[in-house]
Amino acid sequence: MTDTRTACSLVSIALLHYPVYDRNRRVVASAVTNLDLHDIARSARTFGLFRYYVVTPVEEQRILAERIRGHWQNGLGASYNPRRREALELLRVVPELDAALSDLKEKCQVPAKIVVTGARERPGSISCTGLRQLVEDTGQPFLLLFGTGWGLTEELFARADFVLEPIRGADEYNHLSVRSAVAIILDRLLGER
Amino acid sequence: MTDTRTACSLVSIALLHYPVYDRNRRVVASAVTNLDLHDIARSARTFGLFRYYVVTPVEEQRILAERIRGHWQNGLGASYNPRRREALELLRVVPELDAALSDLKEKCQVPAKIVVTGARERPGSISCTGLRQLVEDTGQPFLLLFGTGWGLTEELFARADFVLEPIRGADEYNHLSVRSAVAIILDRLLGER
Repeated sequence: MTDTRTACSLVSIALLHYPVYDRNRRVVASAVTNLDLHDIARSARTFGLFRYYVVTPVEEQRILAERIRGHWQNGLGASYNPRRREALELLRVVPELDAALSDLKEKCQVPAKIVVTGARERPGSISCTGLRQLVEDTGQPFLLLFGTGWGLTEELFARADFVLEPIRGADEYNHLSVRSAVAIILDRLLGER
Repeated sequence: MTDTRTACSLVSIALLHYPVYDRNRRVVASAVTNLDLHDIARSARTFGLFRYYVVTPVEEQRILAERIRGHWQNGLGASYNPRRREALELLRVVPELDAALSDLKEKCQVPAKIVVTGARERPGSISCTGLRQLVEDTGQPFLLLFGTGWGLTEELFARADFVLEPIRGADEYNHLSVRSAVAIILDRLLGER
């Protein structure tokens, strides 16, 4: 696992399992989902991201996530499906957002700009086109935060350098899965144009 | 389940579990995956599709898919999460592609154009931009085919009216999950511009 793609990979993502809302707007730690690891790692690898952080303060959940990663990286899965191994090389399982930011700072020297995503419209949001331009024009690393459960808490929005516009579809319905939202946003930011 | 959105919803998708290749390029029927039903239904609903067909010749798999749909449409799930109910209203479980085409023809009068998707480059493919233009300019229904397993068989490509260009990422790696590929392609075809 060498980091030879540092120079050209300025975007990373973090999937947060805490602090997020549940359906009653209580702040909870959500459970890690197997397909979130795979689907998002494969999207991250496809669009040339630097890192994919899975963030959960629950130790048992980190052990579970590491076990899944280990199966596909070193276990039977590695020879069965090398494409999954390659995708999961980007995965880092960390207990909190600050651990992801520290890891990024260590690799990139400068602190990453925090970009928060969500399904609701918010004043002062940046568009995907605007963020794409920033990524291309600045030499800075960016960390995109995605929430599980019923979305990221307000404290994360307060901490953001940028809030990304939600994905709008045909009408007011925009209840995409986080896996689908990540795929679309990475394509808009980094896909071919 | 009324079809009031017929006029403005010309695009449908079909997720085929047969005929698809397995990793050794044998033609098989793949298993229905719970999250394929949910994620793709939510993407379909977000981008205003007319129908989402799940195609499998295996009766037990169709029963399973219908049971999942029933849980979220009429069972406990319907009141727990109405957004999922609304998404799964687009879902139709059918034994073969022709059943999907017949259903579409019945609703739309004219036959749907078949658009086949895949991860490999093929000569004569249409771009997402090109297909978007066709969808906007013509009054025709389109059915996009997505494969599970290791992809749709050659007979489906031979039957296509259009073959859609694969999604290209940062380099030669493009092993997206079908859930992610559907999300990106629907955004490119029908998302805001």
